[in-house]
Amino acid sequence: MKKIEHIGIAVKNIEESEKLFSSLFNIEPYKRELVESQNVLTSFLRVGNNKIELIQGTTEDSVINKFIEKKGPGFHHIAFAVTDIKSEMSRLESEGFKLLHDEPIDGADNKLICFLHPKSSGGMLIELVQEKSQAL
Amino acid sequence: MKKIEHIGIAVKNIEESEKLFSSLFNIEPYKRELVESQNVLTSFLRVGNNKIELIQGTTEDSVINKFIEKKGPGFHHIAFAVTDIKSEMSRLESEGFKLLHDEPIDGADNKLICFLHPKSSGGMLIELVQEKSQAL
Repeated sequence: MKKIEHIGIAVKNIEESEKLFSSLFNIEPYKRELVESQNVLTSFLRVGNNKIELIQGTTEDSVINKFIEKKGPGFHHIAFAVTDIKSEMSRLESEGFKLLHDEPIDGADNKLICFLHPKSSGGMLIELVQEKSQAL
Repeated sequence: MKKIEHIGIAVKNIEESEKLFSSLFNIEPYKRELVESQNVLTSFLRVGNNKIELIQGTTEDSVINKFIEKKGPGFHHIAFAVTDIKSEMSRLESEGFKLLHDEPIDGADNKLICFLHPKSSGGMLIELVQEKSQAL
């Protein structure tokens, strides 16, 4: 894995959280994006070479709202940039990690993504991300 | 804040977790460090410009073991590099964030550190870190 691409933070209210995290990190969010396939509204802040993704559920049964009900708002996942998501998915499966999808799916920010099951990765939800342009 | 310095992951067993995360990230840990003041044993892996810090409690009442009892192993904190920890602590206090210490304390990896209370920072435990050499 090349680098931490972003850290995903589950939030209840994207507007209040943009204010909170802008104040915390002393930087402004640079874009919002609705990811309809996953029923989430995202907002991004850049810290150094990394990004922070604030994620609000847009439906009651969205995974983010379920996560917040269970664990409260806060850390949701870490995303790692990879150059070839399919080969990384194969490598991880062969190492015994459990993937949440058989094929990469569309994510926010023009990415192909795949999640790993937290039970196989030390309790952490891990996301692989590959720039879509590289996949075409 | 300049960059994400490291992400702290609470683990039950440092040896097993070194194997798991080496396999996950496809990299080897580069050092272990015992932080006696906090009753933790840490192990570091480098991913791009960031570090992953695996943290195992060394006593039953260590904050890490209490965290794992309550939330399970996984994400524990995010540490941000700052150039002047005292001025950043003042800035954050004036913005309404709650600090866990009045003065910076010694952390792993030759750092001065300060934690923010998760209740004031969206459910996330945030650590500020400054290289010690800069403070002398």
